[in-house]
Amino acid sequence: MICSATSSPTFVSENNLHLLPRLSPDQFIAAPKRPLRFVLDNVRSGLNTGSVFRTADAFLVSGLDLCGITVKPPHRDVLKTALGASTHVPWRHFPSTLEALSVLRTEGWRIAVLEQAPGSTMLADWQPTADERWAVVLGNEVRGCSPEVISAADLLLEIPQQGVKQSMNVSVCAGIVAWHAAAR
Amino acid sequence: MICSATSSPTFVSENNLHLLPRLSPDQFIAAPKRPLRFVLDNVRSGLNTGSVFRTADAFLVSGLDLCGITVKPPHRDVLKTALGASTHVPWRHFPSTLEALSVLRTEGWRIAVLEQAPGSTMLADWQPTADERWAVVLGNEVRGCSPEVISAADLLLEIPQQGVKQSMNVSVCAGIVAWHAAAR
Repeated sequence: MICSATSSPTFVSENNLHLLPRLSPDQFIAAPKRPLRFVLDNVRSGLNTGSVFRTADAFLVSGLDLCGITVKPPHRDVLKTALGASTHVPWRHFPSTLEALSVLRTEGWRIAVLEQAPGSTMLADWQPTADERWAVVLGNEVRGCSPEVISAADLLLEIPQQGVKQSMNVSVCAGIVAWHAAAR
Repeated sequence: MICSATSSPTFVSENNLHLLPRLSPDQFIAAPKRPLRFVLDNVRSGLNTGSVFRTADAFLVSGLDLCGITVKPPHRDVLKTALGASTHVPWRHFPSTLEALSVLRTEGWRIAVLEQAPGSTMLADWQPTADERWAVVLGNEVRGCSPEVISAADLLLEIPQQGVKQSMNVSVCAGIVAWHAAAR
């Protein structure tokens, strides 16, 4: 599941502390990606969408499907938090999330919806096999995902939460899912 | 490491989909917390700080130490993304991060700084023992942590990143660290 660049990465200084292999945008585009992508189901905040772009860059996620009211680059809020990641992380826009899921299925993606719902699989128990490709749907900040989107899922995935709010920022959730997939 | 409320949780409806045990603010305050807290080292954006409050609520984090220019509740940006979590997640403010670390040491906290730096421990390899209490320092969005703060750490902790930017949103990083600690 781990990916590497197809050409040698360049080395750049990070705070004069560490020399890290950093990909150029062209190397990122050419690099094999993780079999993971995010579907943003009517995400209201462009700041959240931009933050998901940045996480997708860091974890070599295959791409983003921006659906419904989710704003697209070059919306200024997306650019503000993507910090350049939206220029090389592949993305598409679909008028509706169900339309995106239909296309994703024809492309061989399995659909996981991140929701706290009956029958959900806890994220810690989610162990995708090497030959599986998963599109993870992240819902609207207030309403979550619609019943129709939830019904279309192969899997409901849940990040267990114990506090008062029982809801986290959508871009934080994307980061946790990407980390879980990357750390396996 | 898992925590539970000291009194029975109430059950509330979540999108009419799921009945979840949700803590009241008073139950949260009384509940045992994870031996994890976050130190925000001159975090510029109140929106990021608010998002960390929300993550701290979800994972029963012990508290937040807001240092230097990090804005405090009731700053409107913090309230906007904390969505109420800043009323019950314990927090303190320190004029400087080094001052916070000094107090945390006297309280028995070990200090981890989240940075990409030589000698860092990859997050996946971080396995704190049950008797350890860790304060994880999150740096400024642009500059990261200062050399003085890095020097004061017992541990440098790194989330390996493979993309072009090699930097993620600070509240996303907090979520990943909290998830790693909670999922163990």
